[in-house]
Amino acid sequence: MAYSKIQIRPVALVHIRAQTGRVRRDLVIPLPLEVDREDPRRLPVQLADQIRALITSGRLRPGDHLPSSRQVAGRLGLSRGSVTAAFDQLQAEGYLVAAHGSGTSVNRRLDGLHPVTPMPSPPPRRHGRPPLVDLSPGLPDVSSLADSVWRGAWREAAARPPDAPEDPLGMPSLRAQIAEHLRQMRGLVAAPERIAVTSGARQGLGELLGLWSRTAGAPLSVGVESPGYPSLRRVPSALGHRTVDLATDGRGLRPDSLPAGGGVDAVLVTPSHQYPYGGSLSAERRLALTTWAGGHGCWLVEDDFDSELRHVGNPLPALAATAPGVTVLLGTFSSVLSPSVACGYLVLPPELVTPMADRREAMGQPVAPLVQGALARYLASGALRRRTQRMRQVYRRRRRMVVEALDGLPGARLHPIDGGLAAVLVCRADERELVAGCAGAGIGVTPLSSYWGGQGTEHGLVLGFGAHDDATLAEALRRVASVVSELSPSNP
Amino acid sequence: MAYSKIQIRPVALVHIRAQTGRVRRDLVIPLPLEVDREDPRRLPVQLADQIRALITSGRLRPGDHLPSSRQVAGRLGLSRGSVTAAFDQLQAEGYLVAAHGSGTSVNRRLDGLHPVTPMPSPPPRRHGRPPLVDLSPGLPDVSSLADSVWRGAWREAAARPPDAPEDPLGMPSLRAQIAEHLRQMRGLVAAPERIAVTSGARQGLGELLGLWSRTAGAPLSVGVESPGYPSLRRVPSALGHRTVDLATDGRGLRPDSLPAGGGVDAVLVTPSHQYPYGGSLSAERRLALTTWAGGHGCWLVEDDFDSELRHVGNPLPALAATAPGVTVLLGTFSSVLSPSVACGYLVLPPELVTPMADRREAMGQPVAPLVQGALARYLASGALRRRTQRMRQVYRRRRRMVVEALDGLPGARLHPIDGGLAAVLVCRADERELVAGCAGAGIGVTPLSSYWGGQGTEHGLVLGFGAHDDATLAEALRRVASVVSELSPSNP
Repeated sequence: MAYSKIQIRPVALVHIRAQTGRVRRDLVIPLPLEVDREDPRRLPVQLADQIRALITSGRLRPGDHLPSSRQVAGRLGLSRGSVTAAFDQLQAEGYLVAAHGSGTSVNRRLDGLHPVTPMPSPPPRRHGRPPLVDLSPGLPDVSSLADSVWRGAWREAAARPPDAPEDPLGMPSLRAQIAEHLRQMRGLVAAPERIAVTSGARQGLGELLGLWSRTAGAPLSVGVESPGYPSLRRVPSALGHRTVDLATDGRGLRPDSLPAGGGVDAVLVTPSHQYPYGGSLSAERRLALTTWAGGHGCWLVEDDFDSELRHVGNPLPALAATAPGVTVLLGTFSSVLSPSVACGYLVLPPELVTPMADRREAMGQPVAPLVQGALARYLASGALRRRTQRMRQVYRRRRRMVVEALDGLPGARLHPIDGGLAAVLVCRADERELVAGCAGAGIGVTPLSSYWGGQGTEHGLVLGFGAHDDATLAEALRRVASVVSELSPSNP
Repeated sequence: MAYSKIQIRPVALVHIRAQTGRVRRDLVIPLPLEVDREDPRRLPVQLADQIRALITSGRLRPGDHLPSSRQVAGRLGLSRGSVTAAFDQLQAEGYLVAAHGSGTSVNRRLDGLHPVTPMPSPPPRRHGRPPLVDLSPGLPDVSSLADSVWRGAWREAAARPPDAPEDPLGMPSLRAQIAEHLRQMRGLVAAPERIAVTSGARQGLGELLGLWSRTAGAPLSVGVESPGYPSLRRVPSALGHRTVDLATDGRGLRPDSLPAGGGVDAVLVTPSHQYPYGGSLSAERRLALTTWAGGHGCWLVEDDFDSELRHVGNPLPALAATAPGVTVLLGTFSSVLSPSVACGYLVLPPELVTPMADRREAMGQPVAPLVQGALARYLASGALRRRTQRMRQVYRRRRRMVVEALDGLPGARLHPIDGGLAAVLVCRADERELVAGCAGAGIGVTPLSSYWGGQGTEHGLVLGFGAHDDATLAEALRRVASVVSELSPSNP
């Protein structure tokens, strides 16, 4: 390995023939072939050893083209005979093949002759066979997303990729559009300066926890709803923080479950639409929660994941509107647009704006400037407002389909669906059998018990109804209803 | 605040007229107008109070259109007279205006009459006036990026936005392409299963540190090169970890600066191209570093930020190739493509693959599936390989321009530029005066001392030469040379 002793010469070339469209191009790739005049090995042996090592290590692959012996000789300052001797040796060993007119290349049938063993691969992660129809909660319908406005926004952003925005909280034009979106769709007034673009709710929550634990100099204690949205609830513990389960019921977080002595750094709460039960936090509970938080120096993180898609009644004000000094609103475009853009936002209390910007100065922005540019254009066109209104109609219709298909099933009780894209069906049948039965019918569903931190008190299924067209949904609901009915213990 | 006592009725409507292209559409936005029969205030007063509050809180903005009094009355179950009385009152106060044919809207000149005071905005962050020509190091030339292959890749990805990949480490097709890119451009063989897609080097480093500190249950001690790349060096402390400065010289990290007793959890190192000096770590130093790391249970993080763009000589093997069990390679597409895509990758030791995948299962993927899809297509076309080779020529030419313009200036010494997109000019003149002088000439440059953790031993300028076309670069270099010559103390 005495690299420094070796006289390193300009690189030898390897041509890799790439097939791109109809045009064939030869690519020149630097590969280190070296000769050492003090090496006791003869020059052809040195070269052959190096080429063989490049092949067995996987740096040269079956089918790769080598430069001609004349080129190699010229670049290394050797006689051509030394190079052809090395090539001949490797042909004899089966590593190389020479074909008339196409030069020397690495033997395509090498795998059978000389097994190539680079770094061992880790075992692949096991993923079950995907269901025919995935009713995972929270997935939106993206079938009509890519209209001309959407495609135009991406075309413009890709044609002139924007520079990284100077402001670490995100592109000012996008933040202004998010502020306008929140005002029109959510009734929340927030200056664009308080908005930070995130790559989604989990990333935004992770950033907040990082900011607070950096200040605290220790891991945090984070209150989470139980039952609650499992995806967000896993974030604190994945980052090394402690979670405290707080009880919820049909009207949201129960204030009597808040520890009277405080000791919780932040509470993750869904005041508009508790997940999975769909209840809204009443004004009395809001007041109790914000008073408690203010008195104990606890931050509230308002998970406002799909409040744009409320089905019935007036939306209650965001907690971030009524208690903006202690509340961070966590929003996402996953439900109203698509998870494929991985974009969301935080609405920060003024006190947190500068600390978050400082953190971002060091860590960079989580969302690609090109994505920010495309979304800013799309939002500025008004397309998201029109789309949200259209999708509300679509989701209301599918919600009615769920009610018609599943309400009043024997041995099951459907929770009211006030908003969002998921329904909760409490069942008396064994939950694992239900999930397995649905999987057997080609339908992917989520067990209700996974929404609890510890042991759940209710069992059943959580069903997303947003993603699929009406016909697919109808058939999937028919199959779920059939499985639930069959497995229900009230049936003979 | 007694929301629960109020009889909430279906929402009243506010029409917002959006101008989109040539089509005018009226948008219907839910706004909470409510009446309470037990409220002692008269109904018109209740309505006027609520609309006034919506305006002063910023939820209704100057120019927003209100529904007709007939619509409001119908939805709230009131007489039309109550609504017109409320509208009349607000017109008298100047909040609303009524124009013949266009209904009632919020007064556009409201700001002068009734200042709207929503949540106070945080002070805007101060950014200096941007320089005419920004020679910040590391910025690539993106002028020719958006060719037909690039635009086609984004068009396809936007037209059919991909689902979130099942594998939390990233889209398999993109990871396979990154593996091929590393083999061809970097001579590094890594199974795609060991590659994790990141949103850039800083995000990737942050994820690694998070993973390790979660295991350690405590903040980490991270060795960083001094001088070294300031952007990455700020990451550990921004996340609450301790940094230990390790000395570098023209041949990279000095092994004698590694603490003999260990106690460092990870070392951030640039073996291929030390920043800003450009030296490569010799084989002896590599061996000393990997032996030390293995002996002390310390991870090595190989910052391989622009090794594709090496100008001279053979690239030495990646540390991740010679010591793959202890080294994580940190790569980015910022230099070879554009920072606007915010995409990079980690090459993980097999031992870290499952822990990182588990962390990602909880935290989500940092890069939007749409971006991953577009880049996978672009790379699969071979366009990045062709672009890298073309840009190598361009950057080599600009590097020669730097040498011609700045080598041999009085009172200054130009470091050799082996690779990358930045040059180091050590100067005898006062560094702050130099930076200010260049700024006065419209040129943005970076002080060399900012590359040290503590007090630097050398002063001068770091100049990026990648981003601008040849003519702009030539003029910028001419101005920098003039400023350096003028301020040099050897000049009279």
